Amino acid sequence: MKVYLDNNATTMIDPEALELMLPFLGEKFGNPNSLHSYGSQTHPALRKALDQLYTGINAADNDDIVITGCATESNNWVLKGIYFDKILKGDKKRIVTTTVEHPAIGATCAFLESLGVEITKVDVNNQGVITADDLRNVMSDDVALVSVMWANNETGMIFPIKELSSVAHEFGALFHTDAVQAIGKIPVDVQDANVDFLSFSGHKFHAPKGVGALYIKNSMPLTSLLHGGEHMGGRRSGTLNVAGIVAMGQALENANKFLAFEQSHVGRLRNKLEDALLSLPDITVVGDRANRVPNTILASIKGVEGEAMLWDLNQAGIAASTGSACASEDLESNPIMEAIGADSELAHTALRLSLSRFNTEEEIDYTIEKIKHAVHRLRSISSSYAYAPKWHKSGL
Amino acid sequence: MKVYLDNNATTMIDPEALELMLPFLGEKFGNPNSLHSYGSQTHPALRKALDQLYTGINAADNDDIVITGCATESNNWVLKGIYFDKILKGDKKRIVTTTVEHPAIGATCAFLESLGVEITKVDVNNQGVITADDLRNVMSDDVALVSVMWANNETGMIFPIKELSSVAHEFGALFHTDAVQAIGKIPVDVQDANVDFLSFSGHKFHAPKGVGALYIKNSMPLTSLLHGGEHMGGRRSGTLNVAGIVAMGQALENANKFLAFEQSHVGRLRNKLEDALLSLPDITVVGDRANRVPNTILASIKGVEGEAMLWDLNQAGIAASTGSACASEDLESNPIMEAIGADSELAHTALRLSLSRFNTEEEIDYTIEKIKHAVHRLRSISSSYAYAPKWHKSGL
Ligand SMILES: Cc1ncc(COP(=O)(O)O)c(C=O)c1O
Ligand SMILES: Cc1ncc(COP(=O)(O)O)c(C=O)c1O
Repeated sequence: MKVYLDNNATTMIDPEALELMLPFLGEKFGNPNSLHSYGSQTHPALRKALDQLYTGINAADNDDIVITGCATESNNWVLKGIYFDKILKGDKKRIVTTTVEHPAIGATCAFLESLGVEITKVDVNNQGVITADDLRNVMSDDVALVSVMWANNETGMIFPIKELSSVAHEFGALFHTDAVQAIGKIPVDVQDANVDFLSFSGHKFHAPKGVGALYIKNSMPLTSLLHGGEHMGGRRSGTLNVAGIVAMGQALENANKFLAFEQSHVGRLRNKLEDALLSLPDITVVGDRANRVPNTILASIKGVEGEAMLWDLNQAGIAASTGSACASEDLESNPIMEAIGADSELAHTALRLSLSRFNTEEEIDYTIEKIKHAVHRLRSISSSYAYAPKWHKSGL
Repeated sequence: MKVYLDNNATTMIDPEALELMLPFLGEKFGNPNSLHSYGSQTHPALRKALDQLYTGINAADNDDIVITGCATESNNWVLKGIYFDKILKGDKKRIVTTTVEHPAIGATCAFLESLGVEITKVDVNNQGVITADDLRNVMSDDVALVSVMWANNETGMIFPIKELSSVAHEFGALFHTDAVQAIGKIPVDVQDANVDFLSFSGHKFHAPKGVGALYIKNSMPLTSLLHGGEHMGGRRSGTLNVAGIVAMGQALENANKFLAFEQSHVGRLRNKLEDALLSLPDITVVGDRANRVPNTILASIKGVEGEAMLWDLNQAGIAASTGSACASEDLESNPIMEAIGADSELAHTALRLSLSRFNTEEEIDYTIEKIKHAVHRLRSISSSYAYAPKWHKSGL
C-alpha cells in the first residue's frame, strides 16, 4: 500500500483541476495578452479562475489578487515592498513577525535586517502560537508591517489572525498573513480577518506547483518585486501561467467545498492516527486539536530519530516528514520544536504526518500498524532510549 | 485554417515535452525536497532536465543554472542583485543597457534609477542593434553591469553578444544577456560568448509557461530575489515546479536538435513570407536577414494601423502581433519602431510575424494571400494612405 501523509509539503493535483488545465497545455496555448483568438480564448477560463479565487478567500471587488509563481514570491514581495515603500522612505522602521514563520519570511527578514530594518520576532508559547497580547507587548507606532502565518506548516497550529490584525491596526501598522497552510483546511475570509496582505501557494491545496498569489486589500500600492510588462495591471510582470491559474481557481473552489468534510472526515482520521500514537509511551504531540488545522500531527517520539522513522515508514510505502520539506534535506533538528522549548534531543525526534481529503480509513489503519512497528524496532536499537525508565516499563 | 505566427509572444508546448511532464502532474506529484519515495522519484527526471539545460547552453560544471518562474524574474534578479551587491555597497554606480530591452529590463532599470542608480541606455542603430564600439563609447570603470538582449523580441535582430561581453569585461563590468528570444532559434553558447548571466523563459521555446532560469557563471554570489528555504542551493527559494522543469529540459534539447532545421525550413518560410510582403508597395522590414533570428519579421505597412491588420488576420484565423505581447493590450505604438527612428505614424503600422518549426508551407502560402487581401482592404479605407502618392501609382 502507498500512503501519502506529507500534504503540508505538497499535494496531489485535484483531478478536476488537472482536467481543466490540460487544454491550456495543449491547443489553447496562447498568451492572454495577445490580440488574437489564441489570446482571447484563454480569457473566459482566466476570468472564471480569478472569480474562484476572489470567492475562495472572500476578497472584495476593489481588492487585488495578484498571481505570482509561489508563496515564497508573495512573501518576499510583501516584505520587500514594505521596505521600499515605508521603511526606506523613513516613515517606519520595524517589521514584527514570529519565531516560527516559514523561511520565506524568516530569511527575507534576515536579509532586510542586513539592510538596517529592525526585525522583532515574537516567541511562541507552548502551543506554538502567539496571542494578541504577545503582539501588543512589542508594538509601537514605528512598526510598518506585522507578518504572522495563519497556520504553521509543521504543527498545524492556528494563529488568531483576526485579533492579531486588529492589534497591528491599532498601532497604525499593516498586517500580512502567510496563509499557505490555512487555505483549503479551514475557512479563510480576508474581510472578516481584516488582513491587508495574504499569501498562498496553489500546490498546497491540490493545484500544481509553480503558481501562487498575493491578496492586496483595496488594491493598495506596493512596490513590485517583478518589474516589467503590463501583466496583472503592472503589479507583477511575467507571462501568465494560464494552465496553473485555471487549475488553482478550481482547486480552491473544490477545497472550500470540502471544508466541512475536511473537518469531519480528515479530522476524524487525523484524530484516530493521533490517538494511536499517543497510546504509545513517551510520545507527545504539539498543540491542542481545537486550535489546529484538521490534517496535521507533529509528534515527538522519544528515542527515535525523525529521519530513521521516515526511512522505516518509506519502506512501508508511507510518506511523512520530520517537518518542513525545506529543512528535510538538511537532516537538521525541527526548528519549531526548538521554538516551543524542546531540548535538542527531542527536537531531533519530530515526525510530521499531514493528511488530505484523498486519504482513506484503510490507509490510516495501515499507517497505525506500521508506525507501531517502526517505533518498536527503532527504540529497540536506540542507545539513548534504552536508558529511559519508561521504556523498560512499557515493554514495547 | 488556423495559423499561429506569434511565437515570439509564446509557443505551443512541444508534444514530447508535454508527454514527459504529465506524470509529474499526476501520480509523481511529490516535493523533490521530501525524504521519501514521492520526493526521490522526481530526482532522475530533474537531474536529466538540468543536464539538458547545461548541455543546451553549454554551461560548465561549476556554473549554476538556477530555475526561476520566468525570464522576468531572472532579469529582475540579476539587476536587483547587482544593485545590492555592487552598487549599494558603493563599489560601482552604473548599469548600462540599450533602449530596446524588454520591459522586464527597462522597468527594472527605471525602478533602480529611482533608488539612485545611474542607468545608461545606448541607442540602437537603424538595424535595431548596438555595436561593440557603441558600447565602448559609454563605458568606464564605474559600470557594475552591462545588460544587452541576445535577440530582440520585436525585430528578431541579433546583438553581437560575444563582442559586447568582451567590452564590458575590459572595463571590469559584469555582463548579462536576456536570451529569451535567442534560445532555440540560434546557437547560444555561454562559454563561447563569455557571459556572466543569461536569462531565459521556457514558454518561448515550446516549454510551458511558469518556468524559466538564470545562468550564473562560476556560480558567483548574487543576492537572492526570492529568499527562503534551501531550494536550489539557497539561491532561489520556492517549491520546485517539477513538471515545468522536466518539460523545459526536453524542450531545450529538442529545440537545439532542430536548430539547423530552424535555419533552413523556418528561415525559408520566413523569407518567402517576407519577400511576399516586400513585393507590395510601401512596406519595409526592420533589419538585415543575416543578423536576424530565422523566425521573425517586423514590418511596417504604410497606411495600415497595426491593430486593424491584426483584426483582419484574426478573422482569417491567423495570429500575429504588433510587437511585444506585453504592449499589445495598450494599443500603443511599437517602441522599437520609435527607437530606430520611425516617425509616430509609421510606429503605429508595425506588424510582427514570428514563426516556429511547427509552421507549414501551406500555412505560409495561406498567410501571404490573406495579408495581401488585408493590406488592400485596409489601405482602401485608410484616410492617411489615400493621400500617399505611391498608393495611386501602385493601383493596389
Ligand atoms: C507556511 C508556508 N509558507 C510558505 C511556503 C512556501 O511555499 P512555496 O514553496 O510554494 O513558495 C510554505 C511551503 O513550504 C509554507 O508551508
Ligand atoms: C526579450 C524578452 N525578455 C523577457 C521576456 C519576459 O518573459 P516572461 O514573460 O516569460 O517572463 C520576454 C517575453 O515577452 C522577452 O521577449
